[in-house]
Amino acid sequence: MNLTILGCYAATPRTFTNPTSQVLEISNRLFLIDCGEGTQVQLRKNKVKFSAINHIFISHLHGDHFYGLIGLISTFNLLNRNNPLTVYGPVGVKEIIKLQLKLSNSWPQYELNFVELSSNQSEVVFEDDKVIVKTIPLKHRIYTNGYLFQEKPKERKLNVAAVQEYQIETCYYQNIKNGKDITLDNGKIIPNELLTFDPPAPKSYAFCSDTVYNEDIVEIINGVDVLYHESTFLESEEVLAEKTMHSTAKQAAKIAKQANVKQLLLGHYSTRYESIESFKDEAQTIFEQTQLSNDGVTFQF
Amino acid sequence: MNLTILGCYAATPRTFTNPTSQVLEISNRLFLIDCGEGTQVQLRKNKVKFSAINHIFISHLHGDHFYGLIGLISTFNLLNRNNPLTVYGPVGVKEIIKLQLKLSNSWPQYELNFVELSSNQSEVVFEDDKVIVKTIPLKHRIYTNGYLFQEKPKERKLNVAAVQEYQIETCYYQNIKNGKDITLDNGKIIPNELLTFDPPAPKSYAFCSDTVYNEDIVEIINGVDVLYHESTFLESEEVLAEKTMHSTAKQAAKIAKQANVKQLLLGHYSTRYESIESFKDEAQTIFEQTQLSNDGVTFQF
Repeated sequence: MNLTILGCYAATPRTFTNPTSQVLEISNRLFLIDCGEGTQVQLRKNKVKFSAINHIFISHLHGDHFYGLIGLISTFNLLNRNNPLTVYGPVGVKEIIKLQLKLSNSWPQYELNFVELSSNQSEVVFEDDKVIVKTIPLKHRIYTNGYLFQEKPKERKLNVAAVQEYQIETCYYQNIKNGKDITLDNGKIIPNELLTFDPPAPKSYAFCSDTVYNEDIVEIINGVDVLYHESTFLESEEVLAEKTMHSTAKQAAKIAKQANVKQLLLGHYSTRYESIESFKDEAQTIFEQTQLSNDGVTFQF
Repeated sequence: MNLTILGCYAATPRTFTNPTSQVLEISNRLFLIDCGEGTQVQLRKNKVKFSAINHIFISHLHGDHFYGLIGLISTFNLLNRNNPLTVYGPVGVKEIIKLQLKLSNSWPQYELNFVELSSNQSEVVFEDDKVIVKTIPLKHRIYTNGYLFQEKPKERKLNVAAVQEYQIETCYYQNIKNGKDITLDNGKIIPNELLTFDPPAPKSYAFCSDTVYNEDIVEIINGVDVLYHESTFLESEEVLAEKTMHSTAKQAAKIAKQANVKQLLLGHYSTRYESIESFKDEAQTIFEQTQLSNDGVTFQF
């Protein structure tokens, strides 16, 4: 599981900082999460293959999370994209994009789909044979969802030496990898654990931005490998954080601790701070396994 | 008159090239012309004072000319702008901006006005005591206008030595600067040309992008100091230029020559070409006074 941070700063794009966008690579799928202005240039700078992005998840309709979407959709068309593209986001995102495509008379040649969200309960929005994506209802000034990306349990690894020893035919291998025991011709049952090794544990990633401190999400994100939680402010601005419905680094750490996540990744920093190191320092007083996201950084989990 | 090129490349923003946007400083007014994605970052990089921009002129609703507008409007608000802002552009621009501001629940605190255009005749869209701005109807795949910025004739310069010699009182100076003759107490008439010097000639700038080769604009832009004319393609792509309703460098030069402009500035280059020098070479076979625009360059005229 790789996560590339295209942008992790709040409010406006600036000369050296970018608004929210991330690329998550999980089970060989590439998901784009949020799409602030300039995301397509950040994709180029970070050498992400445009055509591999088939799903874009938008948290909410504040500009620093989606103003780059219309440009990316248009550029996909100029690049002669063929694959369908699906955009997941709050009700309204479809109207905004369609209106602009209509007025520019440039409806894409590829299939463009929208999954519009309005529920305040966590729901599955994407599922295939390897990955499942659920919403994480957040509390912000406008309707907002985080997203939980979970790998499905992987098939067990074949113990090649063992299956050869028992002279099991190849046609049974898939059943074995699926966890089944095998009955030999002499009637003897070989339990699956003698024929396989444990698969790698499925990975999970929770993206939570933007949100005020909200313990309701703890249950949904419980035990994830990586939690990206917004930390727009430091503790000194706690009142402002609540007023603007954002979180502090310490609050993000509290959520990480309660949800028993393996790692916390901070981001969505206000540009008022000269350095972001203090965010880590504050969070680590609560939750040690904290890292700072930063534009252009790729994390391997 | 200063012109700062924020972006002058066609189609999509890239790592080192930006879509169309320019800042024209004329008679101490700052006009933003077109606003492709990333314009607000280009304004920062080029150290343009955000608050001095009160008028934004949008040529047409293709993304590379206006996808940065919503972001700039939002950022103005975050920067606590007070001055009114007026956006000039094709019918539809208001609906696009208002829809996004509504869905993000972030209507600006400053006064935001729209002047929507639909005429196919040149019309005055802005006028104050020093500058007048007219549309230049262009021919492109969708409704498009260029803009002609003209300084109004300036008042004559007082010949201080002469007015003192004739002992003319200060209260008459404004009339003299306005071109009036003066009658002395003894009845003698002093003609204005003895009391003043010629003022600097009013400057003019014509922005023409995007457009197919169109001689109809020659009359409107006749004699301007500077003509920015799109040159998306070289002559080798002339057929493609006509098909996509763009111009070649040579066609831009033909318009410049017919309109008897003082200088031609090329731009809106397709990113298919490795170097833009050929654009100048081709244009100069027709019109010698040709310069190449490029991102981040400021021209003084």
